[in-house]
This record gives sequence, structure tokens and C-alpha cells, in this order.
Amino acid sequence: MDIQQQLAVIKKGVDEILLEQELVEKLKLNRPLRVKAGFDPTAPDLHLGHVVLLTKMRQLQDLGHHIMFLIGDFTGMIGDPTGKNATRPPLTPEQIKINAETYTKQVFKVLDPNKTEICFNSKWLNELGAAGMLKLAASQTVARMLERDDFSKRFKNNQSISIHEFMYPLLQGYDSVAMQADIELGGTDQRFNLLMGRELQKQYGQSTQVLIMLPLLVGLDGVNKMSKSLGNYIGIAESPTEIFGKVMSVSDELMWSYFDLVSLLNTNEIEQLKKQVQNGENPRNIKVKLAMELVARFHDQSAAEMALADFETKFKRNEIPSDLELQEFALENTTIGLGVLLKQAGLVASTSEGARMIEQGGVKIDGEKVADKNHQLAKGDTFVVQVGKRKFAKLKLN
Amino acid sequence: MDIQQQLAVIKKGVDEILLEQELVEKLKLNRPLRVKAGFDPTAPDLHLGHVVLLTKMRQLQDLGHHIMFLIGDFTGMIGDPTGKNATRPPLTPEQIKINAETYTKQVFKVLDPNKTEICFNSKWLNELGAAGMLKLAASQTVARMLERDDFSKRFKNNQSISIHEFMYPLLQGYDSVAMQADIELGGTDQRFNLLMGRELQKQYGQSTQVLIMLPLLVGLDGVNKMSKSLGNYIGIAESPTEIFGKVMSVSDELMWSYFDLVSLLNTNEIEQLKKQVQNGENPRNIKVKLAMELVARFHDQSAAEMALADFETKFKRNEIPSDLELQEFALENTTIGLGVLLKQAGLVASTSEGARMIEQGGVKIDGEKVADKNHQLAKGDTFVVQVGKRKFAKLKLN
Repeated sequence: MDIQQQLAVIKKGVDEILLEQELVEKLKLNRPLRVKAGFDPTAPDLHLGHVVLLTKMRQLQDLGHHIMFLIGDFTGMIGDPTGKNATRPPLTPEQIKINAETYTKQVFKVLDPNKTEICFNSKWLNELGAAGMLKLAASQTVARMLERDDFSKRFKNNQSISIHEFMYPLLQGYDSVAMQADIELGGTDQRFNLLMGRELQKQYGQSTQVLIMLPLLVGLDGVNKMSKSLGNYIGIAESPTEIFGKVMSVSDELMWSYFDLVSLLNTNEIEQLKKQVQNGENPRNIKVKLAMELVARFHDQSAAEMALADFETKFKRNEIPSDLELQEFALENTTIGLGVLLKQAGLVASTSEGARMIEQGGVKIDGEKVADKNHQLAKGDTFVVQVGKRKFAKLKLN
Repeated sequence: MDIQQQLAVIKKGVDEILLEQELVEKLKLNRPLRVKAGFDPTAPDLHLGHVVLLTKMRQLQDLGHHIMFLIGDFTGMIGDPTGKNATRPPLTPEQIKINAETYTKQVFKVLDPNKTEICFNSKWLNELGAAGMLKLAASQTVARMLERDDFSKRFKNNQSISIHEFMYPLLQGYDSVAMQADIELGGTDQRFNLLMGRELQKQYGQSTQVLIMLPLLVGLDGVNKMSKSLGNYIGIAESPTEIFGKVMSVSDELMWSYFDLVSLLNTNEIEQLKKQVQNGENPRNIKVKLAMELVARFHDQSAAEMALADFETKFKRNEIPSDLELQEFALENTTIGLGVLLKQAGLVASTSEGARMIEQGGVKIDGEKVADKNHQLAKGDTFVVQVGKRKFAKLKLN
């Protein structure tokens, strides 16, 4: 591939390249470029948010570049020394090793294991020693650190910043020096830390790394950054049907950003899909392609096909008839028990059959299973109630 | 000595004890207290400013406490990593060793070598490693550090503060932890750093050190803190006659602060001397006692006696007769050469004899030797000129 073609692949989905001209110069060297991407060893369950980075790594790998998957075990072993962040206890070397194995098992669903170098920064950071740490601290000023958005906000709001937090960007920057990185990949939220790598490389007389910054993937809620704590994520170790179903739940709009950031389809192929939708194709069918691609990457092709079949069966089974007529239903009191309602609406023969159906999981309201036989509904509620596979009613309670 | 008597010795000349009540509790333990005082390994020439601290150490030593003379070799070996301070190049272990020897040779003029432990903080600071350094950095916040006067001023004035500068107070504090100090001595300008020792000891579960803060000694100029760079110092390695002469040049006022801070006389003895002056004794004779004491401590008693004899001879020889009459002297031009003046004033037989006397060092103006035969004097000048030992004239040039 010539440089322009390589650039097209590299730039897909990217938010910013700093500096593109430097990247072109590096590509002209015609040798495998050393590509760094850092990962936190404390949270080994990867989700699609991480895949944004991994996909870019894979693309660079396919272009023949040298991929370095960096596990930040040095800080992982320290944890949060202030003890304020209970989710960051210090990890033992054994735990790090286990986490690293879980990690690599997952990342090799995206990366080629034979072409990926796994690095641990404790190797060179421990070697720095106390004196090296002090020298590193001398390389930057307090004012420079307070330029970072989150530090500056916390400082203005009198929220405490521990001194060691100033060291973390420096350590990340020093990783780039130790790894002699030509390129570092990261999210746009990592801009400050990524730039630190360039500054330190300059100080150490190295040529500066090119930064490739990727946007943050929006989660299934369509609003927030995908994250485990918000529950709006697709885990890459999840089952084929889970992954398939979650992808299908993404909105028709957001789907395109997923194509840009986590699909291996190239820009032209994605343009073609967009045209199909413009010409009347159901976006749902396009989304199926994305779901299939991801399940195939994280599992395999046959798993993808089985997930599709499963999804289609469920989809048809769960489909609420679109031609249901709204029935007004007069209540005697302000609320009514679901079992009684089923009987009165003629969906079951008796209240006790209603209760049994509920307990057996055969009753859904607006597509959601209701397992509590004492479930109450109230005047003013409008909903579709389903019993078993075939019985539906669209009710308004008065 | 009972606790009240010990307290009287300890409090002599001290600016602040933090906290005196804690000191009393520690004295009650009735064991040798561990006394820490830190010294910089980069400037081994000690002067009387350092002796303030050393004298307090000596007093504590004489009370039976354990004196730890700490040499900050860890930071000395790092130097100034920013390279901005050319006077702080990194020192090699060999240089540190030589400096330490020069140091101890000097401090043992004040301290008892058999009862003094010399400590080097590289021992425990190197052991901290990169990870320990990060944990130490986590123990304090950026805001806390910016409370220190000089940091706060520099921050407000947009003068750069390197991050490693925040680490230095922490390292000094950690020294107290490693040394299990009961007491730390320091100048009042060290208050912030000394308090850091207490904070870190608390975090490490130790009982907190008592701070004994000493005022800064004013230099020979009577205005500025004594320091080598200002040239207003008395070096403890200087010759007996130099030390003696410099002490005698201290003003009658300032002399009392020297008694408080560097003499081993106790408070009652100093009160007696003050009374003598109030009763008409010449302060010069009291100053002689201080000069004698210091020369005896830094050299020995016979050196002190010789310095006194030497001083008295010189003093008498150099004494300008107090009964000289002012002579008005009319110049032909706006300036006049010293040789010509000597001839015209009748102090030498010829201009060439005047020039020869100047070159031989036999001519003084206001007690200062003038060796330049082209030295010029100007209209308006008033001065005493001396040729040889006995010829004087007090002239005003018109």
C-alpha cells in the first residue's frame, strides 16, 4: 500500500492526528513503526469502548507496523495510595499476571497474537528508582500540570489533588521514551497525557511520537461514554447472543459511529451501506451486518450465524402485532391486580390460571416479563399485555 | 539536671518550640532523645550562621541527648535536575564523601565526635524506590504545598515551580520518619519543612517530633542573614586572628544576639555581662570575651590568647589619634594625585618618596591601605591620611 492508502486506513474514525505531516514522514521511513497503546491492569473486562483502540491497532498491524500493547502494571501494583479510591487497591504481581492473561485472551480476539508485543511498564519504571523519579518530576512545572482540564477544574474548585497525580502523566510519557514509540494511540480524553510523551521524548533526544486520538464510543444509552460502571456496554467476552442483541439495540443514528470506530469495513464500504439506507433499505438489516461482524470477530463466523438465527426467532416470537386495537377498560377501584385483569380481559379462564401463568413467566407487559403475581396496575395506565405466545391485548385502564 | 533546668538551656536563644508541652513529655521519658538536624552536602564551608544550630546541638548533647548530624547526600547526588541552578551540579559519591569529611572536621569543633551520629539520607531514600516515592507523593496535596510562603509567592507571580520541588519537603519529612526523630532543629525559615516531618511521622504511626526553631544569625553587615555569598560571614575554618577581628567588628548592639545564639554562656552569665555594660564597662571588652570563646572553640585556648594579643597590638598600632585637627587644603584642580598630596601636605619630602611609600604599602586613608600610586582624591573629600606608623593628617580638600 502506498502512503496515501495507508493514511486513508489510519485516518478512518480518528478524531485528530498530531501531527499528520510527521506521520507522513514516519511512513516514508518504510519500516514497521512502533505503535504504543496503554491499558489499565485493574479492569480486565474489555468492552466495545476498548475495541475502538484495538481496532485501530489491528488496522496498523495489518499495515505491517509493530504493535505494543502496554499494561500499566507499575501503577496497578501501587493502587491508590491515598486510599480514597476503594476501587483501586494495590494489586500483587500474581493478580497482575492473572489480569494480563485475561486481557490478552480478550485482545487477541481483535489483534494478531503473533504480531503483538505485550509490554509491562514496571520493567523500566522500577529501574528509575527514587532518584530517577525525582529527575522526572523536575522535567515539568506545577503550572504546566494545572493546564490539564481536570486538574485545573479541581484546583479552582478547591478539590484536593495529591502530588502523585502529577506524576502519572509523566510516567505515561516516560513509557513512550522507554518504548521508543513512533505512534501513540489514545482517546481524545488522553490528549494531555499523550502530549507529555512527546515532551519527554524531546527532552530525551528522541524523535517525537505521532498522536492518533480516537473519539470516545457512546454507550447503548445513546448518551454517555460506554463504560462498565454505567452498564451501557457490550463486553467482548459476552456470549454471541448477548453481543448480537445489544448491537441490535443501538439506535439507527448511533450505528454509523459504531461502523466508523469498531468495524473493520473501510470508508468506501460504509458509504455504500449509507446509500442503501438512503435508497430505502431498513437500517435494521444494516445493523445486522455490524452485529454479525462483531460476533464473528469476538467468537467466530458460525457463532455469528447462530446468533442471527436466534435473534430472528426471538424477534418474531416477541413481535407485538402492529394491528392491535386499543380497548378501554373500566376499573372498579383505582388499581387492579394483574391476575384479575387477565381474567376480566378474557386472556385466561380464571384468576388462578392468571396467577399460574404469571409465575411461570408467561405474561409480559410492553414486552417485559412480569413474574410477580401481585403486580398492580392503576387507572390511567396504557399498555400491551401478552399471555403465552399468541394472546395480546392493548388496554387503557379507566 | 531536672526538667526545668534542661528547658532553660534548650530555650536559650530559641525563636519557637513546637510544642513545648510535647518537649516536656519527651524529657519526662528520661532517655536520650533522638535529635535531628539536616545539613546540605553541597556547601561544606561552615560559618557562624551554621554554628547557631550546632551550638544548640551541643547543648542538647551536653544534656545527654542523642545527636544525629544528617547530611542530605541523596538530593546532593541529584543536584538541580532542571539545570537552572548552576551552583547545584550533581555530586558523585566520592565528592559527597570528601565534603562530608570537610564537614565533620568542622562540626567537631562544636560537637563531641564521640557522641555524634553522622547520617546520610541516601541510605533510606534510595531504598524507597520509584514506587515508594510515588506513595510519598500521594501523602500530600498540591494545595498544601502551595501554602509554603515561597511556593505561594512564586505561583502568584507566575514564576515556575518544578514538580520535584514539591518532593523536597516530603523527603525531609521522611528523613524524620526513618530517623525516628524526637526533636528536629532548624532555622525559622524551615518551619514548613519541619512541620512536614511531624505530618509524615503521624501518617507512619510515630509520635511526632518537637520542632526547635532558631532565629537566623545576622551577618557582619548588621542587616542581612549571615551567608557566604554576601561575604558578611565568619567562617569556622578561618584563622584565629580573622575570627577574632571579625567578631570585634560586630556592632555593640548585634553582639548580644551573637551571645544568645552562638555562645555557650548561659542566660544568667549573659545577663551579668549586660549589667556590666550598663554600669559603664566598655562593650569592646565584653566583645573580647565572645571573640575569645569562639576562637577557643574553633581552635584552642592558646590560639585565643595569641589572637587577643595580636588584636591589641594591631589595634594600638592602627589607632588613629583622636586629637587630630582638621586642616583645610586648597586644590589647584578638581582632583589631586595621592603622591602629590602627601608632598604638599608635608607628610613626605618629595612626590617620588610619596609614590614609593604608597607602593610599599605604607600609606592609609581612613585606616585602609592604598597601594595605587595613581590614586586620586577630589575636592570635597574629608579623610585621615597616615604615612608609616606615626604620621597622620586630617584633611578637607577645597
